Amino acid sequence: MAKSLLEDRLREACGVFGIAGHQDAAALTVLGLHALQHRGQEAAGIASFDGRRFHTERRLGLVGDHFSQSATIQRLAGEAAIGHVRYATFGKTILRNVQPLFADIRGGGLACAHNGHLTNALTMRRRLVKDGCIFQSTCDTEIILHMAAQSRIADPVDRLVDALTRIEGAYALVFLANGLLIGARDPLGIRPLVLGRLGEALVLASETCALDIIDADYVRDIAPGEIIIADGRDSRSLTPFPLARERPCIFEYVYFARPDSVLSGRNVYEYRRQMGRELAQESPAEADMAMPVPDSGVPAALGYAKESGLPLELGITRNHYVGRTFIEPTQQIRQLGVRLKHNPIGEIVRGKRVALIDDSIVRGTTGKKIVSMIYGAGAKEVHMRVASPPILHPDFYGIDTPDKDELIANRYDNEGLREFLGVASLAFLSIGGLYRAMGHPKGRDDSHPQYTDHCFTGDYPTNLTDLQEGADGRQLSFLGEHA
Amino acid sequence: MAKSLLEDRLREACGVFGIAGHQDAAALTVLGLHALQHRGQEAAGIASFDGRRFHTERRLGLVGDHFSQSATIQRLAGEAAIGHVRYATFGKTILRNVQPLFADIRGGGLACAHNGHLTNALTMRRRLVKDGCIFQSTCDTEIILHMAAQSRIADPVDRLVDALTRIEGAYALVFLANGLLIGARDPLGIRPLVLGRLGEALVLASETCALDIIDADYVRDIAPGEIIIADGRDSRSLTPFPLARERPCIFEYVYFARPDSVLSGRNVYEYRRQMGRELAQESPAEADMAMPVPDSGVPAALGYAKESGLPLELGITRNHYVGRTFIEPTQQIRQLGVRLKHNPIGEIVRGKRVALIDDSIVRGTTGKKIVSMIYGAGAKEVHMRVASPPILHPDFYGIDTPDKDELIANRYDNEGLREFLGVASLAFLSIGGLYRAMGHPKGRDDSHPQYTDHCFTGDYPTNLTDLQEGADGRQLSFLGEHA
Amino acid sequence: MAKSLLEDRLREACGVFGIAGHQDAAALTVLGLHALQHRGQEAAGIASFDGRRFHTERRLGLVGDHFSQSATIQRLAGEAAIGHVRYATFGKTILRNVQPLFADIRGGGLACAHNGHLTNALTMRRRLVKDGCIFQSTCDTEIILHMAAQSRIADPVDRLVDALTRIEGAYALVFLANGLLIGARDPLGIRPLVLGRLGEALVLASETCALDIIDADYVRDIAPGEIIIADGRDSRSLTPFPLARERPCIFEYVYFARPDSVLSGRNVYEYRRQMGRELAQESPAEADMAMPVPDSGVPAALGYAKESGLPLELGITRNHYVGRTFIEPTQQIRQLGVRLKHNPIGEIVRGKRVALIDDSIVRGTTGKKIVSMIYGAGAKEVHMRVASPPILHPDFYGIDTPDKDELIANRYDNEGLREFLGVASLAFLSIGGLYRAMGHPKGRDDSHPQYTDHCFTGDYPTNLTDLQEGADGRQLSFLGEHA
Amino acid sequence: MAKSLLEDRLREACGVFGIAGHQDAAALTVLGLHALQHRGQEAAGIASFDGRRFHTERRLGLVGDHFSQSATIQRLAGEAAIGHVRYATFGKTILRNVQPLFADIRGGGLACAHNGHLTNALTMRRRLVKDGCIFQSTCDTEIILHMAAQSRIADPVDRLVDALTRIEGAYALVFLANGLLIGARDPLGIRPLVLGRLGEALVLASETCALDIIDADYVRDIAPGEIIIADGRDSRSLTPFPLARERPCIFEYVYFARPDSVLSGRNVYEYRRQMGRELAQESPAEADMAMPVPDSGVPAALGYAKESGLPLELGITRNHYVGRTFIEPTQQIRQLGVRLKHNPIGEIVRGKRVALIDDSIVRGTTGKKIVSMIYGAGAKEVHMRVASPPILHPDFYGIDTPDKDELIANRYDNEGLREFLGVASLAFLSIGGLYRAMGHPKGRDDSHPQYTDHCFTGDYPTNLTDLQEGADGRQLSFLGEHA
Repeated sequence: MAKSLLEDRLREACGVFGIAGHQDAAALTVLGLHALQHRGQEAAGIASFDGRRFHTERRLGLVGDHFSQSATIQRLAGEAAIGHVRYATFGKTILRNVQPLFADIRGGGLACAHNGHLTNALTMRRRLVKDGCIFQSTCDTEIILHMAAQSRIADPVDRLVDALTRIEGAYALVFLANGLLIGARDPLGIRPLVLGRLGEALVLASETCALDIIDADYVRDIAPGEIIIADGRDSRSLTPFPLARERPCIFEYVYFARPDSVLSGRNVYEYRRQMGRELAQESPAEADMAMPVPDSGVPAALGYAKESGLPLELGITRNHYVGRTFIEPTQQIRQLGVRLKHNPIGEIVRGKRVALIDDSIVRGTTGKKIVSMIYGAGAKEVHMRVASPPILHPDFYGIDTPDKDELIANRYDNEGLREFLGVASLAFLSIGGLYRAMGHPKGRDDSHPQYTDHCFTGDYPTNLTDLQEGADGRQLSFLGEHA
Repeated sequence: MAKSLLEDRLREACGVFGIAGHQDAAALTVLGLHALQHRGQEAAGIASFDGRRFHTERRLGLVGDHFSQSATIQRLAGEAAIGHVRYATFGKTILRNVQPLFADIRGGGLACAHNGHLTNALTMRRRLVKDGCIFQSTCDTEIILHMAAQSRIADPVDRLVDALTRIEGAYALVFLANGLLIGARDPLGIRPLVLGRLGEALVLASETCALDIIDADYVRDIAPGEIIIADGRDSRSLTPFPLARERPCIFEYVYFARPDSVLSGRNVYEYRRQMGRELAQESPAEADMAMPVPDSGVPAALGYAKESGLPLELGITRNHYVGRTFIEPTQQIRQLGVRLKHNPIGEIVRGKRVALIDDSIVRGTTGKKIVSMIYGAGAKEVHMRVASPPILHPDFYGIDTPDKDELIANRYDNEGLREFLGVASLAFLSIGGLYRAMGHPKGRDDSHPQYTDHCFTGDYPTNLTDLQEGADGRQLSFLGEHA
Repeated sequence: MAKSLLEDRLREACGVFGIAGHQDAAALTVLGLHALQHRGQEAAGIASFDGRRFHTERRLGLVGDHFSQSATIQRLAGEAAIGHVRYATFGKTILRNVQPLFADIRGGGLACAHNGHLTNALTMRRRLVKDGCIFQSTCDTEIILHMAAQSRIADPVDRLVDALTRIEGAYALVFLANGLLIGARDPLGIRPLVLGRLGEALVLASETCALDIIDADYVRDIAPGEIIIADGRDSRSLTPFPLARERPCIFEYVYFARPDSVLSGRNVYEYRRQMGRELAQESPAEADMAMPVPDSGVPAALGYAKESGLPLELGITRNHYVGRTFIEPTQQIRQLGVRLKHNPIGEIVRGKRVALIDDSIVRGTTGKKIVSMIYGAGAKEVHMRVASPPILHPDFYGIDTPDKDELIANRYDNEGLREFLGVASLAFLSIGGLYRAMGHPKGRDDSHPQYTDHCFTGDYPTNLTDLQEGADGRQLSFLGEHA
Repeated sequence: MAKSLLEDRLREACGVFGIAGHQDAAALTVLGLHALQHRGQEAAGIASFDGRRFHTERRLGLVGDHFSQSATIQRLAGEAAIGHVRYATFGKTILRNVQPLFADIRGGGLACAHNGHLTNALTMRRRLVKDGCIFQSTCDTEIILHMAAQSRIADPVDRLVDALTRIEGAYALVFLANGLLIGARDPLGIRPLVLGRLGEALVLASETCALDIIDADYVRDIAPGEIIIADGRDSRSLTPFPLARERPCIFEYVYFARPDSVLSGRNVYEYRRQMGRELAQESPAEADMAMPVPDSGVPAALGYAKESGLPLELGITRNHYVGRTFIEPTQQIRQLGVRLKHNPIGEIVRGKRVALIDDSIVRGTTGKKIVSMIYGAGAKEVHMRVASPPILHPDFYGIDTPDKDELIANRYDNEGLREFLGVASLAFLSIGGLYRAMGHPKGRDDSHPQYTDHCFTGDYPTNLTDLQEGADGRQLSFLGEHA
């Protein structure tokens, strides 16, 4: 698939958004999802509640492709709405799996949108199927609906809480349950979820940039393990889980979140710039300039340039029209060194020593290609500097990581990888440096790590029940993927 | 909606098809559904099983529009497949409701296609929701999946049988449960289901015309209350219901089934011709010709002409390009007497007395329009003869009947209706005549009626549990219809 | 291509429609084209004039698929409009060739829709190209626009007339030239064109059924060689050609025109019934019934039954859902005797001798298939009776005839063809019988034939300039067909 | 239209590409057009020649949306191809106007793709129409085809040359004339056109980035007034025009060309950085940082920061998913200060003085919105610095400029505009500074200006024949735009 040639990054699984108490709930959800588009580009969906019934629209493609017509907005009637953008974390994205999911359950309808991944989904699904449940999608999220439906507790919200206490893994969830907008974040706060306010309406979103786009005020982060229940104007919170230290996913800081979003009180841009500074301190380069791989390496390169005193050059042009659908048209063409996405600016690199800054390396294919382009444009030396540690371990919390042996850092030592990439020198930011950049001068607290960082360290913060049960969790249904 | 102007007939809810033991299972299902297209033109779907997984494709539109490409067929891998064509019996057709439904349940996947309607669906759904089930569609059919999943019986087929003993109403069902093709017909045999054989493969279909199109042999009708379980080559049958006399829906004979299909051993064409003969005996007309409303009135008109000695004329042209989508473009246009579908042949009717034969009258709007056209073309007299009794009662078994007060026969007596239609005389076939035409010389056996004929008689053959519970059964979900 | 298996008939090239002086001009044109849909199902187009500018919409597909939305109608502003439905007479239909054509020429815009074919198109095109014209489509029609543009005459209408005097072949043309609706029919009246009136608006159409659908009154046929020029309310006519006897295309009577259309004062249905009567007199059959191939053979079968005294049976069901797009899905499937379109009614034919009536035989493939089905359903004997003479010669006037050696009547004598079709006996209507059925008791006047009948007789009524110049007229452009 | 809210820049009309002598001609053209996508995003088209026939594919939308499937590529057979991407310079883009245009003319087929605009198009069109030509599009380009067709010269290439000598205005043209690929650039070289080589194949393109994407070597710019004629391997050039000094469009340097493209021997990125340096010298700002409006202001901001010593901050995030189709869904929503495309990073600007660098100001609406966002994010002062002079005059050479009174610099003096934008100070680069940045230390040579710069100076480099004839050149046809 050509996509793998184009995109050599980890991909976030999803983004979620919800709003209650605004007459333009669906339209504002469209905008919120648009701001979260970087978190999932394969499908989008919205569910609204009009006081009596739910309405859902779910489509493959970008938010702007399908949700910007007024007819669509009008069908999504009501003052409360939730929305979802997604990548397929595995398999092909199919319409049946596009969220929000909806179910008629005891006490009314329930719509649900989920960012994250449940590590006991298969185990729970097996148990539920044995108990007589029927599953109609291949989403792990569907087990939450079943458990809420099956709970013996009387109050509908309490039933949902009951269900949440039985799932493991990472989640930022938004629900629409009749008039209520409900948000929930996993006990470790692995996946992000923030609370905002627009006039009297309450808003939930994966990132603050989704508040900014609708000019909503940021109120606070949803706390790890918090369940927030909002009607039009007011909200209350439950914290049914044992107290645990927060361990947000470090990849939100390194790559996923938009630079203008605020995580733990700072703009993501600032964390990344700081990673560049730490990297410059740890691994200076004998070079004539610091140059980012656009767009994701830019903030780190700014920090690297500042710290090292090297001039910053933005010497690679990126073609933003490379959409989801561009397929290199013929086999022969593919063998040419086609530059669909990036092109270096010759005049800048010719005869020069380039410190090339990227945020991370996954398979190494894009990096290798860009390095070769820069040499082709006449650079004398390319020194690769990566503003995060080597990725060694797969994720099970909603990030689409390749198989372990496709992670290039598992296949080579540093010298081997340097050779593979074809660079004069290669350095990664250390885990200590990364933690320092995040504002922890003493680095990682190994007894109580501040972040979910297993991709670098192998230290998974939760049980991996499905894995221990011998399942890879990747085939949840008898239903084939193209449905 | 313009459609109601175009179509003034009762509409069948659905057609079903299934095949097991043939390497071209999906392609043959496409053809079978194509032959059953008259039973449902708004959506079509196919589920196949490849020995390990299920594959489903479900689309709005005609079979030929979406299922004739080889890529679609190839995705539907496997030697067993079931398919479905449907009208929406109420509300808008939405993709979520297009069958076959699929569920992962205990023991494996289960796909299901249903023709008919369950009269205790809402009551059962309420009970299941109370027990913790979640419902994701607005189909009555979904309760069957839940009940099969929840049954405490060990054997998967027995669980399905258990579920079927708990539903009421009318159904011809085909299931795909791993390697097995399962068919079931309600205890009264209200909806039709036939068994065929193509080489060693077994075939189930709503009508024999779906066997003819693939050159399969007709074996026999599935018996009322029979559940047939077929693997690739063999089949066995269960009859878990108390013995009951068969009461097939009389509308299959009057209007729904294709004239070339065989019901109870005779071609439908013959029954309808016989209805025309009985009508001629009961209600002769002082006319110069017998002329059908095409296409549905043709066989009755043939019989009427033969019996009455009037010459047959096919004096109305029908435009077969009137598809689902033709919308009369402007309000002004609609007020012209637009003849989108029918046009009389002036030379035939000019100055003549026409006995106009139709199979049935529902709202009367089309009939009125055609009568007016024929007079407009110069006819001297139009005598309307209808080859079935007046329709007075709504259906609850899968036929899309209008509300009771939209049924024109409830709004006028015979003279009033004659005047409404603008005809010189009007006569309907009597219920006795209808039964005689069906091969019962003594007419209807009121103690044990031979057919399900409540639309004419008000004699509903089953419990109407949902209705007695005070529900109209038309809103099964909190989910709005446009999803 | 599967289509050739489904359709074994000659295909009309096109239908045209025009209206001037009505505020709903475009909407009425949509309806008119819908009534003419049988004349061309691959593409449709409409051009309107709003007093200042022209608007055009041209689409592949059926009229109802693309022209029934009000947005489309609104874009086609103005009180005058012309429209076109078409088959590709050769090559693939491409959007560039969909009519109406439009050109800015001296004196204003000119839109044009054409039914027919010009027999000197290639010769003229070569000359025009040599003179510096540029051609942008592969339509023969484009030469008319060029010749009108190049004429040295001052008056724009006179220029158009001048152009028409230089083309040869068959045509019914409608033009929109600023405020004027102009119609033209070739000097022999090969292609049909009728004049109607709706209130004060004037209407032109290929057939009267397009007047009926909008409730317009039929005024008269446009005379052979007549050019009619209409503004909103009035019209005047020119007859710039030497007087010639009318020779309308006999295939309009035999097959193309809709049965409810009026040609030369009679409904087409009546001509065809009469052909059946003549056929019965010439070639009676020892049979138990007369049965048509639906739908086209029905009127002839009615006449055959009446004349012969055989009972009429409509014993073949036709599936009208076979659209343009149905592709038989796999190679294996194609080898089964699939009955996509026709299915015999077993009970009617079993053990019987059937006189099977069709209107014409082209390649013979469909006939052979239907005969085989009828025997398969148990018929004892099938006697084929064809209500027109054998087709021996290709057409050059707008009918899509296969190559000469694909015409089955050129490959077999009567006995050979009988054997090929697998029938017990075979007879065609004689040319004399055909003319008698058309109302000419003495048959064909060989010195002044009353019809264009070269497909039967080889007697082409006009020069075939392109053919004499050594061109087959089938490749008009350097442009490939898929553009 | 929402688009005007999103895009407040001048838009290039088109980009062109051509290749001859390569077996993958069409696929390489797809890639070339993809690299030129920034020059036109509303439509794309390709014409190829297979040695005998031309093939064309033309579509609305992005190159990647329609031209990346192998079926499309295969239909575009042949070793020579030309392609085109376009904006509509006026009116709605319609398929009929999408290039390449194609015509059958004397001597063979001729396909043509055009970047630029002809200033005597309407005048010539009137003359040609008077002479009997028919026009089928509303493109100015069509006149070239007619003039080539009408020329009395024998040799086809000479005829084309003859035609080119009669047009005025700006053009980079690529033609496909049977086996030949022909390129032409207007006598002043207003629009760019470069020559490249890939193996033995010759390539023409609007910019060098289209050579880079297919790894072709840059050979040289096509000279002003040069007509280059290439077959598979060789080329020859004609220069039929009187010698004139080159005056390339200065907007290619300021805004249109991609930063990695080479113009007059330097990367565009370098010119723009130099403009930022000049701007810093002319108009320093009392600020804490230099910050670009992304993406177009980035190179100038780099130069401004360097020269001024201010730290560079990339403090505005741009959402690249804003496609062509995003419509703000409701009126109410539009009134919120929606940030569909840009969002400032609060932490960077809070309490700071920002020197905001943009490349140009057209209507001023985007600038005003961004300034307001930056203040909203807490900036203390915003100082706007624009790296080009005020735009005062409309373009007639292929750039989509708004009407004169929509150009904000015509509505306010500097102080008024400062107030309108809401900034603390405002400065534009002077025309002298702009020329210095382009490498002319003495600035603009007013007697022989080095660039086409009328948007800033009002100095139009060619006759504006149509304008002098009283036409605005915006309505070329009687055909409405939605066709």
